[in-house]
Amino acid sequence: MLSTDTRNNARNNARKTTANNTTDPLYRQVARELIADIEAGVYPVGHKVPSVRRLSKTREVSISTVSQAYSWLEDQGWLMARPQSGYYVRACFSPVPREQVADALPPASQGEAPAEFTKAGLITDMLGQINRSSQINLGAAIPAPEVLPLRQLQTHINKVSRFYTAAVLDYQFSPGLEALRRQMAARMRDVGVRCLASDIIITNGCAEALTLCLRATMRAGDLLAVESPCYYGVLQVAGLLGLKIIEIPTDPQTGISVEALQLALEQWPVKMVAVNSRYSNPTGSVIPQDNQKMLLRLAEQYDIGIIEDDVYGELGYPGTAGDQPFNTVLKTFDRDGRVLYCSSFSKTLSAGLRVGWCIPGRWYRQVCEQQTFTTFSAPSLSQYAVSSYLQNGQYDRHLRQLRPKMAEYTRCMLDAVHRYFPPGTKVTEPRGGFILWLALPPPVDATELYHAAARQSVAIVPGGLFSNTGHFDHCIRINTSLPWNKDIDRALQTLATLTAKQLDNAS
Amino acid sequence: MLSTDTRNNARNNARKTTANNTTDPLYRQVARELIADIEAGVYPVGHKVPSVRRLSKTREVSISTVSQAYSWLEDQGWLMARPQSGYYVRACFSPVPREQVADALPPASQGEAPAEFTKAGLITDMLGQINRSSQINLGAAIPAPEVLPLRQLQTHINKVSRFYTAAVLDYQFSPGLEALRRQMAARMRDVGVRCLASDIIITNGCAEALTLCLRATMRAGDLLAVESPCYYGVLQVAGLLGLKIIEIPTDPQTGISVEALQLALEQWPVKMVAVNSRYSNPTGSVIPQDNQKMLLRLAEQYDIGIIEDDVYGELGYPGTAGDQPFNTVLKTFDRDGRVLYCSSFSKTLSAGLRVGWCIPGRWYRQVCEQQTFTTFSAPSLSQYAVSSYLQNGQYDRHLRQLRPKMAEYTRCMLDAVHRYFPPGTKVTEPRGGFILWLALPPPVDATELYHAAARQSVAIVPGGLFSNTGHFDHCIRINTSLPWNKDIDRALQTLATLTAKQLDNAS
Repeated sequence: MLSTDTRNNARNNARKTTANNTTDPLYRQVARELIADIEAGVYPVGHKVPSVRRLSKTREVSISTVSQAYSWLEDQGWLMARPQSGYYVRACFSPVPREQVADALPPASQGEAPAEFTKAGLITDMLGQINRSSQINLGAAIPAPEVLPLRQLQTHINKVSRFYTAAVLDYQFSPGLEALRRQMAARMRDVGVRCLASDIIITNGCAEALTLCLRATMRAGDLLAVESPCYYGVLQVAGLLGLKIIEIPTDPQTGISVEALQLALEQWPVKMVAVNSRYSNPTGSVIPQDNQKMLLRLAEQYDIGIIEDDVYGELGYPGTAGDQPFNTVLKTFDRDGRVLYCSSFSKTLSAGLRVGWCIPGRWYRQVCEQQTFTTFSAPSLSQYAVSSYLQNGQYDRHLRQLRPKMAEYTRCMLDAVHRYFPPGTKVTEPRGGFILWLALPPPVDATELYHAAARQSVAIVPGGLFSNTGHFDHCIRINTSLPWNKDIDRALQTLATLTAKQLDNAS
Repeated sequence: MLSTDTRNNARNNARKTTANNTTDPLYRQVARELIADIEAGVYPVGHKVPSVRRLSKTREVSISTVSQAYSWLEDQGWLMARPQSGYYVRACFSPVPREQVADALPPASQGEAPAEFTKAGLITDMLGQINRSSQINLGAAIPAPEVLPLRQLQTHINKVSRFYTAAVLDYQFSPGLEALRRQMAARMRDVGVRCLASDIIITNGCAEALTLCLRATMRAGDLLAVESPCYYGVLQVAGLLGLKIIEIPTDPQTGISVEALQLALEQWPVKMVAVNSRYSNPTGSVIPQDNQKMLLRLAEQYDIGIIEDDVYGELGYPGTAGDQPFNTVLKTFDRDGRVLYCSSFSKTLSAGLRVGWCIPGRWYRQVCEQQTFTTFSAPSLSQYAVSSYLQNGQYDRHLRQLRPKMAEYTRCMLDAVHRYFPPGTKVTEPRGGFILWLALPPPVDATELYHAAARQSVAIVPGGLFSNTGHFDHCIRINTSLPWNKDIDRALQTLATLTAKQLDNAS
C-alpha cells in the first residue's frame, strides 16, 4: 500500500496543473476530475467508481484513455481494482475540505452567502442541525422517538407496501386517499366538526396545509392578522407571499384577544386571520369556547376567513375534565365554510411520514388546485400506512399513553426552569402540547443566547422568530417532548448559566 | 332482521323532522345526526360508531341520552350491538347521495361550483379520474405498474423502515437525506454535470422542484419564457404566481428555437426561461448539444436564468448511439450556476414515493428556504427507500430493461395512430419518454374530444392545456407507457372514431 505522501503529491500535482489542462494528456485530465470527485466525497471511500465503459461514454473519450486514467489512479493509490467487479475508492486518505477542489468544480455553483443575517436563514440553519444526534434538541418541536409507536408504524408500512401496489407506485392525487379522508371525517366528530370525506384534503403535513390555505385565500399585499407571538412558519410563508401582517395581542392562557382583533378589523382591511386554537405554538394558549364563538361571529360580521392551526390539539394533558378538556375548535362553530382547519400527525405519530390534512370549507377547490400544481399529492405510502394504522383503533390508545407522558416531561422541564433560571424569568404553564415559552429578564438577547447555546450543543428557538415586532427578542421557546434525563437537566443548567452570564455582562 | 322499508321510513322521518329539531327529544336529534353520518358514508357499513361514552363527551349529552339514541337506532335497523365491542353500522341499505343529507350538514361547506370552465379545473378533474381502474389512462403520463420494480421497492421500503428509525419517524429537512444527495451527485456525472451533494435538494417530485425554482427566482409580474407547447404544470404554477408568460416556438425534434428565444430576449425583459432538455413533454423533443451550448451563451449574454426540466431524461430509447444517445443536459454547460436543474424518479421508479431533486445553482439557499417553509422536506421513508434501492445498483439494470419496453409500447401506439386516425393527422416520433403528441386535422376540438372519450372511459389530455395561445386546441397528448393489448387498441380506435365523427359533423 502506498504512503499517503505519494497520494498527497498526486493530489497537489493534480491541483497545480488543473489550470493548464490542455498541456497534459487527456487521461490525466480524466484522472484529475475523478480525484476531485473523490476528494469532494462524491465517490466515498470503499465505493465503486463508474465502469470504464460508462465513463468513456459519458466523458466522450476512448475506452483506452479511461483505462489509462484508472491504472494511473491505481498506481497513485486512489483506486483499487476488484476482479470481475470494477474499480473502488481506496481507503486511508483524509478527504479534504471543499474549497481545495473548487477549481475542479463549476465556480460559485451556490452563489454568495447571504449578505446580512435573515430569520429565514437562522431557521434553515436551526432545522439543519436537528438531524445531528450530538445536539440536545430543545429547539424544533418534534416528539422524541421514544414516545412514538415505531413498531406499529413499521408493521403497517410493511403491510400496505405488500398489499397495495398503489401505495408503492401510484400517485394519490389531491384531495388524497379516500379511506383516510373518511377516517379523518369521523375523527373530526370528536371536536364536534361535522364534515365529510369530500370536505377534507390530505397534505404534506400541517406546514403544507397552512401554506396552501394562505395561497388559496390571499394575494400579495393583502393583510393577514396573526397572534403575537405566533408560529414562525406563518410569518415566513406570509413573507414569501408578500402579505402584510398585523399582529394581535395574544394571552398565554386564552389566546388571541377578541377585543384587540375587533379593534383591528374596525380600522384595517384585514382579509384573513390565522390562529392556533389549542395548545398554541409558542405560548400553549387555548381559546375558550366562548371566545371561539365570538371569533366566528366577528369573522361573519367583517366577512373574513379564519385559518385554524390545531396541530397540537390532540395533546391535551389528562385533567379533571378528562383526556380532552377542550373538545371544540373554531371549525366546530363554522356555519358557512369560512374556517380553514389545518392539522397533521407530525406531533403525535410521525413527522417523517408527512401526513396532515385540512378542511378548507368554501375554498376547497382553490386549495385542491394549489396542491395539484405544487406537490400533486401527499406521499401515497404514508397515506396508506396512516390509514391502516388508524383502522385498527391503535391511535386513540397511543394518544391516551402519549398525553400523560407529555404532561410529565413538560412538568420536569418547568421545574428545572424554576430551579435554574435567574429571578425575573417568566415561563408559561401549558395544559397541552410539548412547548415552553420563556420570557427572560431584559436585557437578555435570545438570538445571542441561541448561538451561545448552539456552541454548547443545546438547540433552542429564539423568541424573535415568532413576531415581526421586537417584543419577544428576550424570549425563547423550548421543546419539552424529551424524556427527562441528566443530559436535559444539564442542558437547562447550561441555558440558565448562559442567561445569567449575559445579565452579568450587562450590569 | 328488519326490512329496508322500515329503515327508509326512519330515514325519511328523520329527514322530515330535521328542520324542527327542537320539537322532539334530544336522543332523537343525536340519532338523526348519526343517520346523516351513516348515509354520508362517514361511518361505512360494518364499521364501528363512536362508543356511548365518547359520543356523550363530544356531543356534551348524558350517557343515558346516547344509550337511548343507540337503542332506537338498533330498533330502526341502523346499528347492531356486538357484546364487549360496541355498536356497528348494519348492512343492507343503499347509501343515498349527499344532497339528501345536506340538511344535516353545514351548508355550502365547499362553496359553489366554479362559474365558468377553467383549465385548472379540467386538470384537477382529469387527475382525479386516474385512480379509477375502469378508465384506460392515455391521459396523465404515469408509467404502468407492470414496468416498475414493485418487489424490489417493497423490499427496500421494509428494510429501511426496519433498520432506520429516522426513516419512519423523523423529518429529513431540506435539502434532504445526505446519502441520497451524494448518490444523485454521482449519477449526475453520467450527463457530465459536476456537482456535489451539497448542491442538491431532494424534493416532493419534479413538480415541487419546478415550483420551488419558479418561486425562488420570480416575482409576480415577472416575465417567464416557455416552450410552445410546454408542460401544463409550468403554465398553471406561473398563473398561481402571477407571472407573465411569453411562448417561444418549439420544434418537435430540436426543442425550443434558439433564434426565436434570442429575438424575444432582445425585445422583452425576460427574467427566466423554462425548458425540457430531453424527451420533452409534450412533443418529445431533445435539445441538440450545440443548441444547449447556444442557450447557455444566450442566458449569459442577457443574464437570465434557466429552469431545466429533465424528468424524462433517463428514458432514451436504445439506439445506435447506445442506451443514452443524448448524454448532456443544459446544466452540463452551466459555468456560473444560472441553470436550475429539476428531475425526479416519478417516471422511472414510482410516482407515489414523491422523490425528485433539483440543483438550483446560485439560487440554492432561496430554494432551500422556499421548501423549508412550505413542505419542510420530502417524505423521509421515501428518501431512505430510494437511497437504499440505488445503493445496490439495481436502478441502472431496471432502466436498461425499461427503455426498450417504452420504445416498444410507444411504437405500437404510433402504428395504431397511423392505422386508425383520419388522414391529415400528424404525430410525433419521440426518441425517448412515453408520450405521443397528435395534431388532429382542423377543425377538430380536442377539449370536446376529451369529454367524448371520457364518456367512453378513455382518458387523454387535450392540447389546449399546453399553451396559453389557442394554437394547440386541435392537439392531444397520449400516454404510451401501457403494455400493448386489445383494450388499448380499442381505446385508440375509439379516439380515431370520435375524431372522424367530429370531422363529419363539421363538413
